[in-house]
Amino acid sequence: MYAITVREPGGPEMLEWSEVPDPVAGAGEVLIDVAASAVNRADLLQRQGHYPPPPGASEIIGLECAGRIAALGEGVTGWSVGDEVCALLAGGGYAQKVAVPAAQVLPVPDGVGLLAAAGLPEVACTVWSNIVATGRLQAGETFLVQGGSSGIGTHAIQVAKALGARVVATAAPTRADRCRELGADVVIDYHDDVPDQLTKATDGHGADVILDNMGAKGLAANVAALASDGRLLVIGMQGGTKAELNLNTLLRKRASVTAMSLRGRPVAGPHGKGAVVAGVRAQIWPMIADGRVRPVVQATFPMDRAAEAHRQLEAGGVVGKLLLEVPAG
Amino acid sequence: MYAITVREPGGPEMLEWSEVPDPVAGAGEVLIDVAASAVNRADLLQRQGHYPPPPGASEIIGLECAGRIAALGEGVTGWSVGDEVCALLAGGGYAQKVAVPAAQVLPVPDGVGLLAAAGLPEVACTVWSNIVATGRLQAGETFLVQGGSSGIGTHAIQVAKALGARVVATAAPTRADRCRELGADVVIDYHDDVPDQLTKATDGHGADVILDNMGAKGLAANVAALASDGRLLVIGMQGGTKAELNLNTLLRKRASVTAMSLRGRPVAGPHGKGAVVAGVRAQIWPMIADGRVRPVVQATFPMDRAAEAHRQLEAGGVVGKLLLEVPAG
Repeated sequence: MYAITVREPGGPEMLEWSEVPDPVAGAGEVLIDVAASAVNRADLLQRQGHYPPPPGASEIIGLECAGRIAALGEGVTGWSVGDEVCALLAGGGYAQKVAVPAAQVLPVPDGVGLLAAAGLPEVACTVWSNIVATGRLQAGETFLVQGGSSGIGTHAIQVAKALGARVVATAAPTRADRCRELGADVVIDYHDDVPDQLTKATDGHGADVILDNMGAKGLAANVAALASDGRLLVIGMQGGTKAELNLNTLLRKRASVTAMSLRGRPVAGPHGKGAVVAGVRAQIWPMIADGRVRPVVQATFPMDRAAEAHRQLEAGGVVGKLLLEVPAG
Repeated sequence: MYAITVREPGGPEMLEWSEVPDPVAGAGEVLIDVAASAVNRADLLQRQGHYPPPPGASEIIGLECAGRIAALGEGVTGWSVGDEVCALLAGGGYAQKVAVPAAQVLPVPDGVGLLAAAGLPEVACTVWSNIVATGRLQAGETFLVQGGSSGIGTHAIQVAKALGARVVATAAPTRADRCRELGADVVIDYHDDVPDQLTKATDGHGADVILDNMGAKGLAANVAALASDGRLLVIGMQGGTKAELNLNTLLRKRASVTAMSLRGRPVAGPHGKGAVVAGVRAQIWPMIADGRVRPVVQATFPMDRAAEAHRQLEAGGVVGKLLLEVPAG
């Protein structure tokens, strides 16, 4: 098969569409004929050599895909060859074929095309595991998403709205309207004093749940923005990894800071990828089927031109996801 | 009535048994004839002027009591005059009488004497709200309690054991046996490298849930000691309030840091004192009734000699709780 390989760690120009050995579906896995994958920020880090795949995972970049099941490994039930599916991957998505544990496979949601489904598993699993499973966002609570126009942000706005929360997003002024169209009740310019603007917008309440991708740089402001009993969920470290935490502020608010990623999770177990995918299928897929949550796709690139998609994500300003379609033949 | 008052902020010698106005049960409150109160570390801070009561709370020290209901305020149902009860207080426990919202009142548990019940509300509400409600400690998980011989520690060991967890406690070597008698499977000398000892004792797993009273000083070691999907629960700041948090370590473990206290909570609401007390009654009281969890009392002082109890807690080495019995007459 063909897949994107990385000549050596570096810029987008290191990505090459090359011939590599076909993957094989092991026990409990399915083999997918990939129709499309999607670009995640982690892919840029992996290309640069900063985010090696977990042990046992494919060396090929790509954390999600959509396509048709080509073969079933030993012991797999519930899926048939030819099924249109999408999947959460530990790697291997930028390729014509990928093998994945059956527990990480989802049906293409009703009302969504096969290509667009390629951009759903990472955002849906990240948003569900954070704001539903861990953050336990409740109807009537205030939800703040940092980076509301990102792939995660555009999905989180819609899911939080569907859960009945009041949604506040930070975004560049040029992308504020897109956040509002997706359901954000309030959009704050991320250049502003976000805790201060949030306090004004919520009559002093703050955010019950915050989804953050900045890490260290945003920690103090995010803790300041939390309401009593608030939950700060950190999913990215774009602003560094180490910062001072004032435990007394946290204690006065009875608040929590959680940081998590999907990729390093085991497949099985109560916190495993299988449990997350099952939660997404039970709680997020119905929101998509009835139209409350829609895929947000900025652009689709032929997969052999993945470098262009990486350049676009690095340049900033992307709203939603960038897809990579496997070329015909 | 008589109560302990603080002449001016300072040492134990500032505590005086003096005549003060009687409290009155307002709407939704009960008035309790106090039989005993108990000493909490927060009481020492309040005596020194470092921990003022929340707005509307009594100026009198004392976060818990046991006694008999003397009067019911307007609209109170479910309790009768003469009932033997204990209660979680926002203040006012070091006194002959105290008024408290009915939602913060508990029956004296089966099998426990009225005096010993005075030392249960704070530990039970703290342990339940942390390791059950927030930490969601599961059977088979590993639980680490820092300060296993303290009032909180002695209760937490027993509750975690009753929940089916593997219990690890830190303690001074002279108090290790007491922790083991209460159910600790492993006791680590707190002078040792606790994450290292814990790693050895758990075959590299670490702690799924940690209950900590040191705050800043213990933050890095506690994060290091967490297992994947681990939850660090900070309930005290004896080692300071500000420390560097490595969010990347947290993210790799999918771990959380939560800090909370009981005193500042509202009475009502999903995180309020009423909800905590209801949870304790439903889940902790049966553990006490069937003998799996017992009150641990080091000593009982006449309340008019509260200064001696404060001196003893400040001197260190107390195992379990110190009670303050209201003198006869």
